[in-house]
Amino acid sequence: MNPVRIGILGLGTVGTGTLTVLERNAEEISRRTGCPIVVRKAAVKHLSKSRAPIVDRIELTDNPWQVVESADIDIVVELIGGEQPAYDYVAGALQNGKHVVTANKELIAVRGNELFEFAQRQSLVIGFEAAVGGGISIIKAIREGLAGNRIQSLVGIINGTSNYILTGMKEMQASFDEILKQAQEKGYAEADPAFDVEGVDAVHKISILASIAFGIPLQSIENIYRGGIGEITYEDICYAEELGYRIKPLAIAKHAEQGIEVRVHPSLVPHQRLLAKVDGVMNAVLVTGDAVGRTLYYGAGAGSEPTASAVVADLVDVVRASKTEPDGRVPPLAFRPGPASSCPMLPMSKVVSANYLRMHAINQAGVLADVTKILGNHEISIESIIQKSSGVHEDMVPVVIVTQETQEENIAAAVEQIEDLNTVVGRIIRIRINELS
Amino acid sequence: MNPVRIGILGLGTVGTGTLTVLERNAEEISRRTGCPIVVRKAAVKHLSKSRAPIVDRIELTDNPWQVVESADIDIVVELIGGEQPAYDYVAGALQNGKHVVTANKELIAVRGNELFEFAQRQSLVIGFEAAVGGGISIIKAIREGLAGNRIQSLVGIINGTSNYILTGMKEMQASFDEILKQAQEKGYAEADPAFDVEGVDAVHKISILASIAFGIPLQSIENIYRGGIGEITYEDICYAEELGYRIKPLAIAKHAEQGIEVRVHPSLVPHQRLLAKVDGVMNAVLVTGDAVGRTLYYGAGAGSEPTASAVVADLVDVVRASKTEPDGRVPPLAFRPGPASSCPMLPMSKVVSANYLRMHAINQAGVLADVTKILGNHEISIESIIQKSSGVHEDMVPVVIVTQETQEENIAAAVEQIEDLNTVVGRIIRIRINELS
Repeated sequence: MNPVRIGILGLGTVGTGTLTVLERNAEEISRRTGCPIVVRKAAVKHLSKSRAPIVDRIELTDNPWQVVESADIDIVVELIGGEQPAYDYVAGALQNGKHVVTANKELIAVRGNELFEFAQRQSLVIGFEAAVGGGISIIKAIREGLAGNRIQSLVGIINGTSNYILTGMKEMQASFDEILKQAQEKGYAEADPAFDVEGVDAVHKISILASIAFGIPLQSIENIYRGGIGEITYEDICYAEELGYRIKPLAIAKHAEQGIEVRVHPSLVPHQRLLAKVDGVMNAVLVTGDAVGRTLYYGAGAGSEPTASAVVADLVDVVRASKTEPDGRVPPLAFRPGPASSCPMLPMSKVVSANYLRMHAINQAGVLADVTKILGNHEISIESIIQKSSGVHEDMVPVVIVTQETQEENIAAAVEQIEDLNTVVGRIIRIRINELS
Repeated sequence: MNPVRIGILGLGTVGTGTLTVLERNAEEISRRTGCPIVVRKAAVKHLSKSRAPIVDRIELTDNPWQVVESADIDIVVELIGGEQPAYDYVAGALQNGKHVVTANKELIAVRGNELFEFAQRQSLVIGFEAAVGGGISIIKAIREGLAGNRIQSLVGIINGTSNYILTGMKEMQASFDEILKQAQEKGYAEADPAFDVEGVDAVHKISILASIAFGIPLQSIENIYRGGIGEITYEDICYAEELGYRIKPLAIAKHAEQGIEVRVHPSLVPHQRLLAKVDGVMNAVLVTGDAVGRTLYYGAGAGSEPTASAVVADLVDVVRASKTEPDGRVPPLAFRPGPASSCPMLPMSKVVSANYLRMHAINQAGVLADVTKILGNHEISIESIIQKSSGVHEDMVPVVIVTQETQEENIAAAVEQIEDLNTVVGRIIRIRINELS
């Protein structure tokens, strides 16, 4: 059978991993697709850069359009990342009648609606399994494996850098900054870590998952609530532990009666839950469907070969599907978002959570009474309080309060009032609690 | 678009669940497939039995052939279970040009080779996602999500009954018999539990998974090593805990250099591993691929709607694929086993494991020396020994020995010799250890 011809844009970590996996497992892959997959061309930034020997057999160019417009390419694999110029190349590939496989979460999250529509009109496929959860085939699981379900919620650890940092802080009894530095040295965090630790990366990913799970168009990124992990201290991790929780960087998408919630922020998770045991750079997504109940998908969320594994899985899917049509065209995978208005997005102010609050109070009578009175005024019930004498500053005591569930607008207003008390010093650390029940 | 017409054989727990899910989520399912899926007929054993109201809209018959041969049916869903007469009906459905979806692990494990070949010749599909892991789409994950990988191993908890019993024994500090009785009362175990607790069910399932993962024909069930959980006592669970392990009913398939191992038996698993935390009736499979590394899939392994979730996912796949061909025929999903001889099955005697041994020894000098000498003669190294004075029978002491890795034939021979010692009373309990590393 004629081989399927691939062109790759970008030969960084994932591009080189994809070449390696396609070559090493060529036999298995042909067995699964019924024909060989060969990489014909790759576009790179610097032609002169020295590369792994595996690259030698491939025609290199520093002009991506030579791949995108080539008559010798059936599928374009976009591994450049970022919105632009990746968008232009992907749109160009579709224009030239080529299927696209991409690992680019930003591109899909930000421009996916238009790209999918364009691909659908052209009867072409865009595969983007590698954009979320690295090697975990979470998109396939939701879209195909759980096709019979009404998906109720997705709760995931989908940013490996943040999970590595929080795990490291706990295990090494260290500060955010110390572990961030370590993560940067190991290549688990970028020189500018904001994208990961402030939740932007997770917002892109959860937006994609929510769109598939609930059949809604991709939401504007600005409308998704985003909280980073930068404020969390080792102290918080210890208090959480004492209360029976781990702090995990969660991305949440929930289809509640009142609307759809999509949000990214660290959360306290009961320590006996599987998600609480997902450590280091590993990713996992807990998916609850009305028929299947709870299912969990776990694996490496990033890295060269795990991400390549998802890219190759998409390639195999596209090849398999395209063999069924005489002209090689494939009916696009079912991705038919319903009308955007069919289920409104719930504003963050209406989201309900229990909360962990940590504050520093002046060690004098009546402080707790003031704090609990404010919470009571906002109809927030208290689940538990930890107050310990602080060895160092005896005039100040740390106070940790766990509230019962309440709406965001209530707790936000209460926290603001408590911060205004003369007896409470500095900002209150608030972390939401997710019982995963 | 014309609806796809389904005929169901068997309206027990899973059949009724399938009807319920297809009706409740009809809108989602049409969105994903592009056309409605309607159940037209169902064959039941007793027409007179009173049934859920949802059954009222369906034409019932007590003759399965009226479904299998009907011109009004596109896909036959076989939910009868067991090898016969299910085989005849499934073969009949294929003969009549109908795709088949089945939850029948025994049928697939025992007769799958011939059924797949027949289906392939007819360009028909047999979907069997529901046969393994209930609602976990583990077959799709291995075959499609990990299509770029050489699968190295599968280690799963795939029999919910056995997992429920071992979890219950630990949590309730109870005996096998007590928890088995409880499981039977709750409907988690059959009146005759042998199929589950002796590992037959898990053998069927792991045989199916190994075939897909390694691209080999389904192996004869008799060639797969099978050990049940009936010998495990609460005492063993406590010793395991003391040593840092949980006892879990594992099914293992491994592609080692020397050959392919497929086996089912309880194992000690380090307590910090995710698989060790999979409790009750839940299932999970840890899949290691050369590109992706370790991935884990977790969910309900049985039950009405979780199993129905997998049945419906298969239906959606078949419908989607069949829409791509003008005549409604589908190219069979890639399931091309290589030649059976391409990688030989490793006989159990050559499998390597560490072992947990528990024995009762007469409380006199030199006993341990005799035992350890026998182990040494078989070149088996000892990792640790626990010997405690037994409160009740002071003339007898329980001894627990953890060995390092050794071949099955060595440890089996050593255990036999130790059992022959005059100072060792009764049988030795041996449980293999799987570090999952």
